[in-house]
Amino acid sequence: MTFRIPNLFQFARVPSKSLLLVPNHHHLTRTLVKTSTSSQRRTKTMSSVNKSAHAFDKVRLDSLLNRRFFYAPAFEIYGGVAGLYDYGPAGSSLQANIIAEWRKHFIIEEHMLELDTTIMTPAPVFETSGHVARFADWMVKDTKTGDVLRADHLVKGVLEARLRGDKEARGEIQGPVVEDPKKRKKKGAVEAQKAVKLEDSAVKEYEYILAKLDDYTGPELGDLLTKHTITNPDTSNPVSAPIPFNLMFASSIGPTGQHPGFLRPETAQGHFTNFARLLDFNNGKIPFASAQVGRAFRNEISPRAGLLRVREFTMAEIEHFVDPDDKSHPRFPEIKDVELSLLDKHTQSSGQTTIRTMTLGDAVSQGVIANETLAYFLARISAFLLKIGIHSDKLRFRQHMANEMAHYATDCWDAEIFNHQAGGWTECVGCADRAAYDLSVHAKKTGAPLIVREALREPIVEEKLGAEWKKKELGKAFRGDAAEITKAVDALNEQALVTVQEALEKGSYEVTLASGNKVQLTKEYLSIEKKTIKTSIREYTPNVIEPSFGLGRIMYALLEHSFWAREADIERGVLSLPPLVAPTKVLIVPLSAKEEFVPLVKEVSQKLRRAGIFSNVDDSNTSIGKRYARNDELGTPFGVTLDFASVKNGTMTLRERDTTDQLIGPIDDVIAVVADLVQGNLEWPEACGKLKKYDGVQDA
Amino acid sequence: MTFRIPNLFQFARVPSKSLLLVPNHHHLTRTLVKTSTSSQRRTKTMSSVNKSAHAFDKVRLDSLLNRRFFYAPAFEIYGGVAGLYDYGPAGSSLQANIIAEWRKHFIIEEHMLELDTTIMTPAPVFETSGHVARFADWMVKDTKTGDVLRADHLVKGVLEARLRGDKEARGEIQGPVVEDPKKRKKKGAVEAQKAVKLEDSAVKEYEYILAKLDDYTGPELGDLLTKHTITNPDTSNPVSAPIPFNLMFASSIGPTGQHPGFLRPETAQGHFTNFARLLDFNNGKIPFASAQVGRAFRNEISPRAGLLRVREFTMAEIEHFVDPDDKSHPRFPEIKDVELSLLDKHTQSSGQTTIRTMTLGDAVSQGVIANETLAYFLARISAFLLKIGIHSDKLRFRQHMANEMAHYATDCWDAEIFNHQAGGWTECVGCADRAAYDLSVHAKKTGAPLIVREALREPIVEEKLGAEWKKKELGKAFRGDAAEITKAVDALNEQALVTVQEALEKGSYEVTLASGNKVQLTKEYLSIEKKTIKTSIREYTPNVIEPSFGLGRIMYALLEHSFWAREADIERGVLSLPPLVAPTKVLIVPLSAKEEFVPLVKEVSQKLRRAGIFSNVDDSNTSIGKRYARNDELGTPFGVTLDFASVKNGTMTLRERDTTDQLIGPIDDVIAVVADLVQGNLEWPEACGKLKKYDGVQDA
Repeated sequence: MTFRIPNLFQFARVPSKSLLLVPNHHHLTRTLVKTSTSSQRRTKTMSSVNKSAHAFDKVRLDSLLNRRFFYAPAFEIYGGVAGLYDYGPAGSSLQANIIAEWRKHFIIEEHMLELDTTIMTPAPVFETSGHVARFADWMVKDTKTGDVLRADHLVKGVLEARLRGDKEARGEIQGPVVEDPKKRKKKGAVEAQKAVKLEDSAVKEYEYILAKLDDYTGPELGDLLTKHTITNPDTSNPVSAPIPFNLMFASSIGPTGQHPGFLRPETAQGHFTNFARLLDFNNGKIPFASAQVGRAFRNEISPRAGLLRVREFTMAEIEHFVDPDDKSHPRFPEIKDVELSLLDKHTQSSGQTTIRTMTLGDAVSQGVIANETLAYFLARISAFLLKIGIHSDKLRFRQHMANEMAHYATDCWDAEIFNHQAGGWTECVGCADRAAYDLSVHAKKTGAPLIVREALREPIVEEKLGAEWKKKELGKAFRGDAAEITKAVDALNEQALVTVQEALEKGSYEVTLASGNKVQLTKEYLSIEKKTIKTSIREYTPNVIEPSFGLGRIMYALLEHSFWAREADIERGVLSLPPLVAPTKVLIVPLSAKEEFVPLVKEVSQKLRRAGIFSNVDDSNTSIGKRYARNDELGTPFGVTLDFASVKNGTMTLRERDTTDQLIGPIDDVIAVVADLVQGNLEWPEACGKLKKYDGVQDA
Repeated sequence: MTFRIPNLFQFARVPSKSLLLVPNHHHLTRTLVKTSTSSQRRTKTMSSVNKSAHAFDKVRLDSLLNRRFFYAPAFEIYGGVAGLYDYGPAGSSLQANIIAEWRKHFIIEEHMLELDTTIMTPAPVFETSGHVARFADWMVKDTKTGDVLRADHLVKGVLEARLRGDKEARGEIQGPVVEDPKKRKKKGAVEAQKAVKLEDSAVKEYEYILAKLDDYTGPELGDLLTKHTITNPDTSNPVSAPIPFNLMFASSIGPTGQHPGFLRPETAQGHFTNFARLLDFNNGKIPFASAQVGRAFRNEISPRAGLLRVREFTMAEIEHFVDPDDKSHPRFPEIKDVELSLLDKHTQSSGQTTIRTMTLGDAVSQGVIANETLAYFLARISAFLLKIGIHSDKLRFRQHMANEMAHYATDCWDAEIFNHQAGGWTECVGCADRAAYDLSVHAKKTGAPLIVREALREPIVEEKLGAEWKKKELGKAFRGDAAEITKAVDALNEQALVTVQEALEKGSYEVTLASGNKVQLTKEYLSIEKKTIKTSIREYTPNVIEPSFGLGRIMYALLEHSFWAREADIERGVLSLPPLVAPTKVLIVPLSAKEEFVPLVKEVSQKLRRAGIFSNVDDSNTSIGKRYARNDELGTPFGVTLDFASVKNGTMTLRERDTTDQLIGPIDDVIAVVADLVQGNLEWPEACGKLKKYDGVQDA
């Protein structure tokens, strides 16, 4: 079976109707959407390379990533732990480059306020935010073995297997559509292998359930399990009713163990609890955004989807604080013509998965996207993902449906990336307008004024009715009750004050005290009069727009999109990572490790370093071709070779990873071209005009 | 009282005699040591500024750091949690710049293999490493209130207070030497305020105890508490005997709670458990180093020393794997003439704190530092700290004493930085030669071959005795026992085989089987013969040299060293952070927020960004002088002002933070000079030769 990947980042912190807080999206839509200009440019650059000569081979990619230590199961020598991965040198470097670009793209370009807050969090914070009560997934237990399964994963796996079996029985497909035969031994295998024809109505019902799966509550999932007699596919045993399992890792702070704490499942609360300080740092002005890159933890029930579902991960989160009455964005005009692939909530609710390609200008004006600021961030998210190498035809934005979204949220969109690990689309970035919820709950709980106070340009002057008290007389007549009486009347609204006025005109107005006693007020004690009230300060709780990035998911998707194999060398892969994020930019390849090349290698390394370019030397005892191939697997975009001609003439060849084209020129000229290529000032076809083509056979 | 800061980073993972795993160093040596060339250069550059016009004022620094949100107590609106701090925009940025320089200085320049491993760690890993049993501090409880105190902190606090009281009584000092009067209300205050003269012998004994404090075991600390009748200074109640408290935060992994886990208290285990993969990545060659920057957690007993003692912190750790038989370093000649301030273990054990300034060449040849590689790292650590702005006269390297160090370790040195928060020296970097301990224990536990296999240049040929079996006869005679018999004899060493040979010559050799049965072997079944054994592979467990950086401590010390106040404006501080690490490099100050300056501000911002320089605009409605002063507090080294002359003539003034000198020139010339200043290619006095001095009064 294929894995299903639920939304991870934009969880509805306090949903209205559902306890299902990490909802799933499951459409295995394989209809890929239009190619944008940015991707067309990339395609053109590499026009001479046919990267799709072979079908995508996940087994080979996994082997490459493991063998070259992009990442590996953590504590592997201890047998590993599901959902924990360590990044090796190649993976760490790729991740560091993605984060560096994220910082540049968001924090520096948009002048965001960076934060670095703690992971360990005292329990009261997550009690307030709603996580303690509700940050849970629904799990079921195998009634005989006690094995634990995620309820939504189970429903999806079994119904999808039945639909495949049906298609097989109808002769529409041949056997299960699973690339890796090993997987057929795993979950869902029992049913996946039965080619049983279903009633047409059952096919329809299953498809409807799958299209709407993210929208079911826990009890509703339980009903589905019963109605469709879904059992544990590994054992065929019945399963229990769904019960919620809180996903936060618990610990306790201090030597006496009396302070319960949790590891944060997101970085967001660190932004909210520091709001007053951030606002002050920004001179009290709004809008502004805070940003943070850091670890978060979720004790997933049964993670087995590689980097797509892990128990510890690096996030990058932005909290953009904005005036609830003005969600326009000054830079919206710059992005209003950007087209994105949108899958809106109405389409999904009707059981469809059709993508609409729209400009953001149209999407906002037609009410598809709630406001300009949200749309602006979707454009920036898209630009970031494309820049680091995500393929535009494998990127879409999916809107959350009613139950999926928290009741207080205005709108929420996920950037979803198509990948083979999920066998479909995976949420990699969430982007929600969370309204005033987060700041409001923390302010209410702590009493901290998490508000903006804004001097109004023009004070608001209003005429309002108000009570004018004759305090002396009131005190004399009612003594201890006077305070309660004034408070009761002062709290009345305009409408009610009119009633009081009328009653006083007619004689008296009756007030019932907390004690149950009634008192009669007359004109002797008060009159109701028109007053001029001037307001020069506006106080409000800002709304929050929250783009939230799962860096591990993005990195995995990028690795998939970058992977291909040459026809000539199908065994070895190539990772066509953009120079911007490639772990090593240039490989220096001396003909051999002999001393005669050492000074040149040193010179070239130093010159590259001075140009700010990270290079690596491979002087191992193997052919130049093999050394290049080995570095194609690491995604190194450029290679320079130092040979006898370099020693004699001071020239150097330059090789490009995807085309394997080679150019030649004086060492300094080549370094200048490489610097421009790495910094993105030059594309390879242009570089080919700047240096001579090299035809020599160096690697004999 | 002053706070005491124990060593945090180079903890002896399995000490020989002591359970005290996070030992303290406590010498409040105020004799600062010689100024190195690097610091002289810095001093010269700023020759016109008298930064020590006023005594260091910690209260003002703390106020600045809090007010400008460098960092603040985490979850402050919830009342905060001791030992947890959030970094705001200024602190995050400073930290990010320090980390970026660390990566450049270590990972890139030394071609280290970067790692990013998980924080959540299954218990068996820390059982093997020794943390579960022994990563503990000694704590005592107030016998009446139940308050928890760290045993070593308590001894130090009370004895120091008594010594102060004695000095007061002798008229050597006036009142307690505590800057902040509020602190007198806290711990140690009761005793600190008593001016009681001590016996001369008691003074000597207290001084001896304090000089040797890091070397006491838990029971020994208990003896000290009894002997010197030390009580809880807050309550005067007696305290319990010291009991160990494990500092790791515990949690559990998975939905069923059956897998106990801990948050890592250091990143090192992630390096060791991945050793085989790292070695493979390095083509099986040694030496190499892995490096990691990441969070670690320690559930400190009672943290209250600001960023110096926290429960969650960012570390940067290097594990350099080296041949145990060859700890020379190829780059040692480059650093052998570097002089460091050393406090060796012999000096400390004799109760002294005298610093020796030595070249690293001498230190290694005289056996003060154990080997070249360790010395090389000390030089690199020193260079890094000075580069980011630590004052060289406040940096020393202190060697661990016998009990302080693990029994398996060869040598260990801490880079200690003088600071007023500690009222002395704080360990900020540890650097230990941990021998083969870590890899050996993990290999033994898991069976993973954490070793290096090295082809010998010349195979080693040895003549050795060995058993030559007559298998057929043996099998016939002993059947099922034959295997056990051969195994028993083959396992014997050279010496024992001589005995077997003699026994066979005399008749027979007796072997006792596991069953208890005895069998007699004769020449019929075997003979003992000389065999030629050729070894062409050498297998060994590498040793580990571990530099370990506490980034929060370094950052705090840097902030202290950078802080001063101008005579003219004592209320406002200046942070003289080097441009390399300053959060913002350039402040752009338009005369006002009026539209006429907007295009120029945009132009200058863009040009700076293209030059890779991070700038900020301050167009707030206050005088230019105030805006500069506000940014002096944030450590912004340069400011450019755009005024009417800029609009008219295209000129811009450039202001330097420390001297407040101002220069003027065409906008592009000023940007070129700023770029050189920020990149470290130019110092301010030289810049003054490149642009005209500006004398205009802009801020009228």
